[in-house]
Parts: sequence; structure tokens; C-alpha cells
Amino acid sequence: MSSKEKQRILTGITTSGTPHIGNYVGAIRPAIEASRNQDNLSFYFLADFHALIKCQDPDLVAQSTREIAASWLALGLNPEEVVFYRQSDIPQIAELCWMLNCVCAKGLMNRAHAYKAAVDQNGEAGEDPDFGITMGLFSYPVLMAADILIFNANKVPVGKDQIQHVEMARDMAQRFNHLFASKKKPLFALPEYVVDDDVAVLQGLDGRKMSKSYGNTIPLFLGEKQLRKHINKIKTNLLEPGEPKDPDTSTVFQIWQAFANEQQQAEMRQAFADGIAWGEAKKQLFELINNELAEPRERYNELLANPSYIEDVLQAGAEKARRYSEPLLDRARHAVGIRKLG
Amino acid sequence: MSSKEKQRILTGITTSGTPHIGNYVGAIRPAIEASRNQDNLSFYFLADFHALIKCQDPDLVAQSTREIAASWLALGLNPEEVVFYRQSDIPQIAELCWMLNCVCAKGLMNRAHAYKAAVDQNGEAGEDPDFGITMGLFSYPVLMAADILIFNANKVPVGKDQIQHVEMARDMAQRFNHLFASKKKPLFALPEYVVDDDVAVLQGLDGRKMSKSYGNTIPLFLGEKQLRKHINKIKTNLLEPGEPKDPDTSTVFQIWQAFANEQQQAEMRQAFADGIAWGEAKKQLFELINNELAEPRERYNELLANPSYIEDVLQAGAEKARRYSEPLLDRARHAVGIRKLG
Repeated sequence: MSSKEKQRILTGITTSGTPHIGNYVGAIRPAIEASRNQDNLSFYFLADFHALIKCQDPDLVAQSTREIAASWLALGLNPEEVVFYRQSDIPQIAELCWMLNCVCAKGLMNRAHAYKAAVDQNGEAGEDPDFGITMGLFSYPVLMAADILIFNANKVPVGKDQIQHVEMARDMAQRFNHLFASKKKPLFALPEYVVDDDVAVLQGLDGRKMSKSYGNTIPLFLGEKQLRKHINKIKTNLLEPGEPKDPDTSTVFQIWQAFANEQQQAEMRQAFADGIAWGEAKKQLFELINNELAEPRERYNELLANPSYIEDVLQAGAEKARRYSEPLLDRARHAVGIRKLG
Repeated sequence: MSSKEKQRILTGITTSGTPHIGNYVGAIRPAIEASRNQDNLSFYFLADFHALIKCQDPDLVAQSTREIAASWLALGLNPEEVVFYRQSDIPQIAELCWMLNCVCAKGLMNRAHAYKAAVDQNGEAGEDPDFGITMGLFSYPVLMAADILIFNANKVPVGKDQIQHVEMARDMAQRFNHLFASKKKPLFALPEYVVDDDVAVLQGLDGRKMSKSYGNTIPLFLGEKQLRKHINKIKTNLLEPGEPKDPDTSTVFQIWQAFANEQQQAEMRQAFADGIAWGEAKKQLFELINNELAEPRERYNELLANPSYIEDVLQAGAEKARRYSEPLLDRARHAVGIRKLG
């Protein structure tokens, strides 16, 4: 199958934090598996423009970019097989974002869930509806549409909270095509969202969803000692060794499941019934996770020690990406009337 | 005075129409005169991104770009002395626009006059407040801020309706500096608006303000025959030759004033008192205007016949412009955390 006929899949990774094992299990691992599918042409990008919406700590943005790029490479994303780039290295994205602004109804943005949730929160707090809301937050779906459309992506794997944004990108593509392209030769492909209902949502140390905002995460590439320490902090109940334990209400077991094969799952389920001590269960959990992450962690640390290598990879990726974005933006420019004279 | 110390003056020209003599008298002629001031470093740009907000006719955008570029050059704008470029040739503008989105409160845009006027109009028409309003219209002051700040412009000559937008650009510059730069070394200059209260507002054929939207304009570079025809269409009253006429309520005299020197103004005032025939007054008006525009018209037609020359001029201008915008955007990127690795 030639690369022209391949389905294009696009995945963005916001660079405003350090990846934790919840990100790994729920997003990174499945995405890297999917990247090996030769029927697809996969685009992965570090969404640093998006990071600026929520993060006004420049060092954190820079550090996160480094860590996330190193993580994905260490975990086996093959930059030869996919298009792996940094959003801000593709000038066509910001330019298309402006063009899409001009065909996007403001009313559409008024209805975006993320914006509405912020307005509701302000209402509850007795604040002005738009208190603390930036134009970045408000117009973020337009930027996301530009991310998707500039590569004519066909499929966008997202969490449920992002379905609406892909639909909005589709709206904008349709509107642009309608205004500026012929029916037979539309400019933008209409993207579709893909939601994997089986995605594991990992619990954090305190049993709530693992999330940076709860401060309950296990960072992905902790050293062994730190990893063991974090796992030992997972909240458990007071049952003694020998007392049977319920795997289905246990965070230890929930995380175990995300790393274990079927046989290992069955064995641990039995061990819980047999009254395994929490200390022992956590020790085994540490070994299971460490087993999966030890090798990538070594590569990760090597990569972090060699940031200019990562930069080279990203630059090569950006060049590859621009081979798609440049000609498409040229067509879009011509379509709206931005044309060279003569 | 080195170019570093010069005041930077920035003027944008939206490319969504054909220049008429109202634009010439009210904007182009004074701007070109100002461009000769060697104390300043003047930036003039064809605002094609802005044109996309109001104009979804691609051929019109393309044609207007050609006509406006040719007009300014024909009228004596010297691209060697100023920075004359097309907005869309400066990728740093769209990128900075996104960065400014992330520091610009949505509430600020809610208060923009142009947006509020559109909302009021919708209210009167019984429509949804945001009916027909695009994100382009809503976020247009952010793009305008990027236009200004990317060149660290100090002064922005504007009409009164644009004062607020320059103040908003100043707000965004301050906010960005506060968040991301040291007090001693601010990233962006704080721009000031300049309003010339003496700017002539020309009346159109029907006596109302000359404006494309009223369909009452005299296009700037009509051929002689057409120019004469248009001038003959200027609305007058029914006074006969020999009857004294009031210059101060006459569109013919109002336009005369915009092209005549003091002596010519006094003479025509006397001729009105003496009862000059409307036909004769219009004949003299034609000659006065034609006298001023005949030479530029010739150059204009030569330029239009040679669009690739105009393109070369614009490309050279864009290169000159990017010598300012590239290093400044690099600094802005670094400031927010978008940094090369290694």
C-alpha cells in the first residue's frame, strides 16, 4: 500500500508534565503498539502550543518536552516508521489556525465542553463567567482542528472528553471545503474520532484516578528505589497477612492488571483469596512493573543525557511533517485568495 | 540616528477592496508623506490575514492585494526606505498570535467595540447574539496585536475606531512581559496609537462619507474618461449658472479642498460666490484631480502589467521584515519554554 493510500492517524501529546504510569498504560503503550500497524501512516506530535494554554512555567514546558520526547522514543516509537515532530516546528499549523478562525462560528466555541465547564465553575464561585479564561482556552478547538487538518488526518484516537473537538474539526473542514473548494476536490479530509473503550484508567496511590492534579501519580521512569517507594505508598486496607482480600476493590490489584498477562492476573487473584500480605503483593507489583520498564528506563536515561540527539530526531521529523503540511497549506492559501503575484 | 534608535511606525492595509480617492486622501497620501521622515523606521503591510475575516471571495482578495501593492508603489512609497511586506509572508505573526491568545483574557475580547457592535446588531434583528460572528472577527484584536508586537512597533497611526485595538495590543504586551520577561529587559515594546484629527474624510458621490459599502466611491486609478464620468455624477443642487453657491455644503467643493492648495481653495470659493456653473466646477475638479493622479496612474498601470516585479518587491520586503520578526519570535519562544533541546 503506498503512503498516499494509508489511513492517517494523528495523536498529540501535551507537553506540560512528566509522564506517569497512568499515561503509559492508558495512552502511550497502546499508541506505540498502534504505530507498528503498517496499514497506517501515524503522526505523533509534542503539542507545545497547547501546553502554553495551561502552563505559564517556561522551564516546565521545556523540561516536559524533553521528557516526553525521550519517553516515547525509549518506549519504542520508531521515528523512521512514523512522523514524530514538535508542533511548534510546523509553521503551517499556526497559519492554518488563523484561516480556520475565519470560517469558524464563534457560537461553535461557545458550546465547547471545556469552555462551558470553566464558565460553570466561575458561576458557582460567584465570579464573572469568563473569569480567568484566556483566548487560548477558548479557541483551543480551532488550534486542534489545524493540527488535524494540516495533515489531512483520517482518524484521531482520543479520550471521550475530546470527541467533541474532533467533531468541531470536522465541521471546520466541511465549512472550508464548502466555501473554498470544489465538491470533487475537497481540500481537507473529514477526520473521525476513535475512542477505545477498553483503555485502562489507572488508579493513583490514593485510589482515585491517577492524575497529576491529584498528586497521586507514579512517574513513569523513576529509578528502582523510588519506584519501590512509590508502590509502597499505595493505599491499602488494614487486613492482616493470611486474611483473604478483595482484588476488585484494591488499587494494588488494579495496577497489577494493567501490567500482567492473563495467567499472572489469575495467579494474583488466587493469592488475594489466599490472604497474601500487602507487603508481598506490593513487592511483586514492583517486580512486574520494573520488569517491563527497566530496559526502556535505561534507554530513557541515555536519551536524556543526549538531548541534541533527541533534537536531531525531532528536526528530522519536522522536516518529514512539513513535506505534508507545506503543499497542503499552499493549496489552502491559494483557495482563500493568498496568491503570489505574477 | 541608527535604525535601532528610530521610532518604529506600523501601518496595515486590509486587502479586501480597490482603493478610492477617499482612502488616498485620508490614509495613503499622509502615510506616504510620513514614510519620508528619516527619523522613523516605517513598516507598511498588506493585511491579507485580516482580509479573510470579512472577505470570502478569493479572487477579490488576490486582486485587491495586487491593486493595493501597485497603488502604494505608484504613489511613491519607496520600498528601499521602508519595510513593505505582505502579512502572510511573515510566519512569525500567526505563531505570535497563538502565544498572545494564551495571555489574553477572553473578557478583553468581549469588550472589543467591533464585536459588541455586531452583537448589538444581532440583538436588534432578534438573532442570537453571536449570529454570523466568526472566531476571526472575535479574535481579530489578537492578530492585530501580533502584527504590532512582532516588530516592536512604537507608534501605530489609526482611525479613532482602532484606538481600542492598539490599547489591547499594549495590554497583551504588558501581560506577556510581566509573565515571561524581566522588568529590566522587557520582550515587547508598548505600542502607542497616533490619531491624526486633521485627516480629511472625503464625501462620496451622494454626499455621504465615501465608502465602498455605500457604493459612492471614485476609484483611485480610473482612466481619464471614467474619472470625468464619475466626477460628473457628484450630486449637486439645482442652482443655475450665475446663481451664487454655498461651497461649504457642496461635495464638489469638499473634494476640491482635498486636492487644492490654499490659493486654489480661495479661488474656487470666490468662483462659487460668483455663481460658477456646476458643469464648470466639475470640469475644474476633474483637471485638479487628474493633474495629481495622472503620473501615478501611469506607473500604476505599468506595475499592474508587471505583477512579478511587484512580487519581487514584496519578497524583498518580507525578507527585510523577517530580519526583525525572526529574532524577536525566537526570544518569545524561549521565554515561554519552547526551546531547542541540547
